[in-house]
Amino acid sequence: MAIAVHVPDDTWRMPLTVRYYEADQQNVVFHGWYLNYFDEAFTAYAEAIGYSIQRAHADGADWMVVHSEIEWHGSLRWPDAAEIAVSAVHVGNSSMTIDFAALRDGEAVCSARNVYVMVDAEEYTRIEVPQALREALGRGQSLRRPRAGR
Amino acid sequence: MAIAVHVPDDTWRMPLTVRYYEADQQNVVFHGWYLNYFDEAFTAYAEAIGYSIQRAHADGADWMVVHSEIEWHGSLRWPDAAEIAVSAVHVGNSSMTIDFAALRDGEAVCSARNVYVMVDAEEYTRIEVPQALREALGRGQSLRRPRAGR
Amino acid sequence: MAIAVHVPDDTWRMPLTVRYYEADQQNVVFHGWYLNYFDEAFTAYAEAIGYSIQRAHADGADWMVVHSEIEWHGSLRWPDAAEIAVSAVHVGNSSMTIDFAALRDGEAVCSARNVYVMVDAEEYTRIEVPQALREALGRGQSLRRPRAGR
Amino acid sequence: MAIAVHVPDDTWRMPLTVRYYEADQQNVVFHGWYLNYFDEAFTAYAEAIGYSIQRAHADGADWMVVHSEIEWHGSLRWPDAAEIAVSAVHVGNSSMTIDFAALRDGEAVCSARNVYVMVDAEEYTRIEVPQALREALGRGQSLRRPRAGR
Repeated sequence: MAIAVHVPDDTWRMPLTVRYYEADQQNVVFHGWYLNYFDEAFTAYAEAIGYSIQRAHADGADWMVVHSEIEWHGSLRWPDAAEIAVSAVHVGNSSMTIDFAALRDGEAVCSARNVYVMVDAEEYTRIEVPQALREALGRGQSLRRPRAGR
Repeated sequence: MAIAVHVPDDTWRMPLTVRYYEADQQNVVFHGWYLNYFDEAFTAYAEAIGYSIQRAHADGADWMVVHSEIEWHGSLRWPDAAEIAVSAVHVGNSSMTIDFAALRDGEAVCSARNVYVMVDAEEYTRIEVPQALREALGRGQSLRRPRAGR
Repeated sequence: MAIAVHVPDDTWRMPLTVRYYEADQQNVVFHGWYLNYFDEAFTAYAEAIGYSIQRAHADGADWMVVHSEIEWHGSLRWPDAAEIAVSAVHVGNSSMTIDFAALRDGEAVCSARNVYVMVDAEEYTRIEVPQALREALGRGQSLRRPRAGR
Repeated sequence: MAIAVHVPDDTWRMPLTVRYYEADQQNVVFHGWYLNYFDEAFTAYAEAIGYSIQRAHADGADWMVVHSEIEWHGSLRWPDAAEIAVSAVHVGNSSMTIDFAALRDGEAVCSARNVYVMVDAEEYTRIEVPQALREALGRGQSLRRPRAGR
């Protein structure tokens, strides 16, 4: 849990408009919506780097989340104009490890790491990450760091 | 809009637990969730009368909402134990008109009328309401009445 | 139900990115999400015409949906870049009647009419539509017409 | 990621009806809904052990999720009658560590660990876990184990 967030200025970001119904009776975005935001952001990121989920489907490939770790350091609120930062920190044989941060006025209020596995679009069996996607993802910086001290 | 709700005691009802995240910053259930409740209720009702959506699928049939009218007279709140009342008010050749009411402590806070069309499960073209479903639905009372006066 | 949609070219529109999780097993946007889209669109429209919900709150006012009528003529799909058209068709003493249309490639796949009542932001009792909002809304064209014949 | 799930027979469980709209175009429950299920389950569990969130509110206390780890080993599907298992594995000074598992036909398809912090219901500053809640939670078994070998 002792995780600090650091989002370099050049990290890719998706603008996000918090929707009214996503805020709960505590007047903050309900924590369950963040995975939905990250899903939107990864889809947008994949398209931005030139290997959209549609291209994956055309190649007979799909991806699925198998692991997620999330820390909340604060909250998004409605009607924030927020951002979701995305960074590909590791691409394995058949998996992709992607870091996310939710930013409010440039401050990270939530960070997360998802692991996706690449699967055959019909059978949902593991396949290799397509070479074109591997190259497009490159090697980004981690947005999460073990916190010093403590 | 001048619609009054009347839910006879013998109307079929699905118990509903309002989920925390469905309440918004006004501390009431966000209006967008009611169509989801009615969808759940109609699925449960179809199963209760012996013609589940699974049976429809096995018969090559499916249903789709094409029209909805909703009036809010009040609000559900979290953590209400609520009920959704369901009544089939008209079965046409290829359509079903279903009335709904959302109840809180036995009081209707919302009423609605949905029209569903029966479609082929593959082509989504209109088909006749299966005879078994027609018989199961019977002819319920309307839960909505034009309000007197006004 | 015999409603035709007509969206004049100069109608105000909010761009909408359909989210992956909003599409269901029929591969179309689940009908329950449309009210959420219309809510987002009305909030954005109010801001665009210079009377945002934040300004309403500052004036001690709020609005609530009390009536909704929706027709689906088709479906939005993921990953559509869609639009929600908004038109204020009537402003009463304490209510606003707003038409909506969901467009896919410029074609309306869904139309709706919501009635909102203006309420005191604390007590949720009816109040008059603030003059500034009334003027900002103006008088738009209906996006829905009774269908000829039939 | 090398986490195995083990849910002892006597673990507390909340029955869960998967809702139609929660299944996506892959015909499985979208991964973003699981945090919502766990939230519902923890609320129900707190009530079952005699310290409901309402009682917390009455005591001026509330809880917030600050950390979540989730592994998906499989998927829930609609119309599954599923269960969410809940076990309190650690109660700290001002935090509670709770394990969850989502079960389909008795098989765990997803496991998770949430850390909640206890906060003042007005100020959202950290407070101690109320003694009555601490006693009610007891000390449950972990539902997650590092996987042997690999």
